[in-house]
Amino acid sequence: MKYQGPPSFLAAVEALSLLPGVGEKTAQRLIFSLMKNPHDKIPTISQALVNLMQNVRHCEICFGYSQDPVCPICLDTGRDQTVVCVVEDPTNVFAIEKSGQYHGLYHVLGGVLAPLDGVGPDQIRIKELLGRFDQRSITEVILATSPNVEGDATAMYISQSLEGRGLQVSRIAQGIPTGGSLEYTDQYTLGRAITDRRQWL
Amino acid sequence: MKYQGPPSFLAAVEALSLLPGVGEKTAQRLIFSLMKNPHDKIPTISQALVNLMQNVRHCEICFGYSQDPVCPICLDTGRDQTVVCVVEDPTNVFAIEKSGQYHGLYHVLGGVLAPLDGVGPDQIRIKELLGRFDQRSITEVILATSPNVEGDATAMYISQSLEGRGLQVSRIAQGIPTGGSLEYTDQYTLGRAITDRRQWL
Repeated sequence: MKYQGPPSFLAAVEALSLLPGVGEKTAQRLIFSLMKNPHDKIPTISQALVNLMQNVRHCEICFGYSQDPVCPICLDTGRDQTVVCVVEDPTNVFAIEKSGQYHGLYHVLGGVLAPLDGVGPDQIRIKELLGRFDQRSITEVILATSPNVEGDATAMYISQSLEGRGLQVSRIAQGIPTGGSLEYTDQYTLGRAITDRRQWL
Repeated sequence: MKYQGPPSFLAAVEALSLLPGVGEKTAQRLIFSLMKNPHDKIPTISQALVNLMQNVRHCEICFGYSQDPVCPICLDTGRDQTVVCVVEDPTNVFAIEKSGQYHGLYHVLGGVLAPLDGVGPDQIRIKELLGRFDQRSITEVILATSPNVEGDATAMYISQSLEGRGLQVSRIAQGIPTGGSLEYTDQYTLGRAITDRRQWL
């Protein structure tokens, strides 16, 4: 006697459950919201996803998102061609761009080393990063993977691979976030903030 | 010099942000996940949403989800035609069906009374519920809105509207969830669990 729901509803629940962090309950909630006014949002979302799939690819040089074979950042001769910022995923590029503090090139690894999940150096774009130093005038590398266990291990591995090439290698700063408070900062962050303190006057 | 990202990427971020509870960061994370293997999941999700929009409508009788004008539950003559369970939204129907403990009919309100959000009795399907008693042999109404302030107020309003019709009106039980522990149960729930205790032996 149990009625599970109309087939197209069940298919939509299953499809939305393919998204990371979305389970059956969340998918049902999303669908309930969309169904309040289906012709309002569904065509927009559906078309945007298809356009995303058809138009967006990885830049051949930095592996960031691009609609052309080479992305506007790699093509921009006004940017500093001597420094490369290494990040985990393509959205990190837009986050750093938003800060307005960086005007060099990028390299997107497409992940971090995670041996337990079967992600070794060959599964992320480290070979491609090393290849970029042969052709180009790069003198500095900024390792901007996240300051957690896997991001640190990845940065360490890359910096070891870069040894002997005469490159300046740096790591993004760790410390208390802007607007943060000492009271609510964990001991490790606070320790790094003290150790890595900057000369001011 | 800031580069926001390819247009189709930005459009996809904006489109996914239309979903409730999804902001710019979450949308970027979803897209990053989809882009790891775009041809794998995007056509499925996109098509499922379009099918949802085109095939799923509200049942003309109970206002639950259906692919036909009247849903299989309302059409099923094997179900108890004397009892109607009143719920907030269509996904509640499938949740109750899953329990396997109910074999009657449903009525989906499409929301709860929320005066502060401008949702009064005319914005949810109370008039349609009252209309069902004129034609049919219904003798019992189970009010299954959520046991929170708005759900309680809605149940109260409906039970007052039903007065004088000679109907048996009940409210779903409140108490400690199955598998729950007294230690972690709040005082109000515990109070209801004691007040509404059942004779056992």
